[in-house]
Amino acid sequence: MESSAFALILTLALAAPVAPAERKCLLSGSWQSDTGCRMVVSTLGEDGRFSGSYLPGSATGDSEILTLPLEGSQQDAGLVPQPIFSFTMHWRLQDSETAQTTVFLGQCYVGSNGEEILHALWLRREATNSPVEDWKATWVGTSIFTRIK
Amino acid sequence: MESSAFALILTLALAAPVAPAERKCLLSGSWQSDTGCRMVVSTLGEDGRFSGSYLPGSATGDSEILTLPLEGSQQDAGLVPQPIFSFTMHWRLQDSETAQTTVFLGQCYVGSNGEEILHALWLRREATNSPVEDWKATWVGTSIFTRIK
Amino acid sequence: MESSAFALILTLALAAPVAPAERKCLLSGSWQSDTGCRMVVSTLGEDGRFSGSYLPGSATGDSEILTLPLEGSQQDAGLVPQPIFSFTMHWRLQDSETAQTTVFLGQCYVGSNGEEILHALWLRREATNSPVEDWKATWVGTSIFTRIK
Amino acid sequence: MESSAFALILTLALAAPVAPAERKCLLSGSWQSDTGCRMVVSTLGEDGRFSGSYLPGSATGDSEILTLPLEGSQQDAGLVPQPIFSFTMHWRLQDSETAQTTVFLGQCYVGSNGEEILHALWLRREATNSPVEDWKATWVGTSIFTRIK
Repeated sequence: MESSAFALILTLALAAPVAPAERKCLLSGSWQSDTGCRMVVSTLGEDGRFSGSYLPGSATGDSEILTLPLEGSQQDAGLVPQPIFSFTMHWRLQDSETAQTTVFLGQCYVGSNGEEILHALWLRREATNSPVEDWKATWVGTSIFTRIK
Repeated sequence: MESSAFALILTLALAAPVAPAERKCLLSGSWQSDTGCRMVVSTLGEDGRFSGSYLPGSATGDSEILTLPLEGSQQDAGLVPQPIFSFTMHWRLQDSETAQTTVFLGQCYVGSNGEEILHALWLRREATNSPVEDWKATWVGTSIFTRIK
Repeated sequence: MESSAFALILTLALAAPVAPAERKCLLSGSWQSDTGCRMVVSTLGEDGRFSGSYLPGSATGDSEILTLPLEGSQQDAGLVPQPIFSFTMHWRLQDSETAQTTVFLGQCYVGSNGEEILHALWLRREATNSPVEDWKATWVGTSIFTRIK
Repeated sequence: MESSAFALILTLALAAPVAPAERKCLLSGSWQSDTGCRMVVSTLGEDGRFSGSYLPGSATGDSEILTLPLEGSQQDAGLVPQPIFSFTMHWRLQDSETAQTTVFLGQCYVGSNGEEILHALWLRREATNSPVEDWKATWVGTSIFTRIK
């Protein structure tokens, strides 16, 4: 009796699919965006902070840009399966005096197919000369990242 | 002759107004927003990173929130008079399971009256259960901060 | 008796302050924004649609622009005291081939001082050549309008 | 000689691919978004105005919503191959007192594969009680629409 009960439990355990909610989305690794950019999240601290690098796509027309360092953090890293994250890049076009900063705010999801996917919105700001010109300083958009395997 | 030349130089120096472009906007200190929030930027590192605390206004209806820690960075800190900055707050309402993160992206200006002023846009994101629900996760808005004296 | 009762009612009617919630914010008329723009909402249809004109401020640096026609609509016009509204402007800089469109989405409020005030966010889009460049096409910001008296 | 010259011209005409820049993106017809929504642009006026209907996807969790009427306009309709467009929907959840309005601002592109595609950003606003609460009224996001064949 005991052995058959054990076998039953084992069978159930083996057969039980891992619920999507139990899968975790991990930010570390290499990602590519739907707009042709690539990103590497290289380190991930215990406090949820991370750093990495960002490579804008050839589509940007800013071919003079190589790789940008990024700094960010996750919320409740290690505690929740699908953490919210944010990161920042400060940059400057080589042919321009203009400083720009981009911030991404997204969530790291486990999709219905079990694959990790990042959905993010971003704001990009260009330095202006005075508060009067500030109204035209900021762009907005979205990016979806999938893991490079 | 020398003394009168010196007096002339001194007079010119005293009379010369500091050009607005030479004034610097410093992020450290206490700020209040046009929406009733308060913010203290307490430390400012040589690499442009800073930390501080954020106190949402009573207007938010989220009275259970006390003070939120914030982490951020300036672009070209110490090099430009009106730096771009960004900062992030991760938070969680006490009466809710819902995690939220807010990112601010702004520029620290010296206004025409010589007073420092921060113009920022922000994105606020709420955790959702799946990519399918992601479309309704993000709010947007602006904040203008002036220094608390 | 009747005349004194009538007098009492009249007195009450004259003395009764109009509750803020009963005050209505009306979109028609002339408005100025916190960024130096002016707007006239000239007609207001029964179906909530309206038209008007928009004059960008000198602050925009786009001095070649004169007045732009705007088209919009209110939600539940005449039924709610503080209606949501939206309007659109299609425009083209005289020194440029680039077409742009701006959409405003806001709410018409009666402020605590009894004055009408419009709070709006806007998106501004510039035509690009292909979907690949679309990511950099859109700006975002806010405007607050008060009535020109 | 003549007939062979004619044959050559005919051959060239048949072989000449239509340049992508000459293809036009037409807004009229049925579209589906990357977030599971459907849209029909039913009429298209000479002045660029259009109307239609919008069906939010089952993904929204707002199953009580049926079809929403939309009103919009294109910039330079008929003159440019890839026009900018905007449209507005006013709506109200059946189980709610809360009025909402959504504005879309996008561009109608001919993709590299010759297929039409709409890239849009949107703002969604919920009515609030006063200017003090206005800061939390507005969501932002993007939608990509492809034609339903």
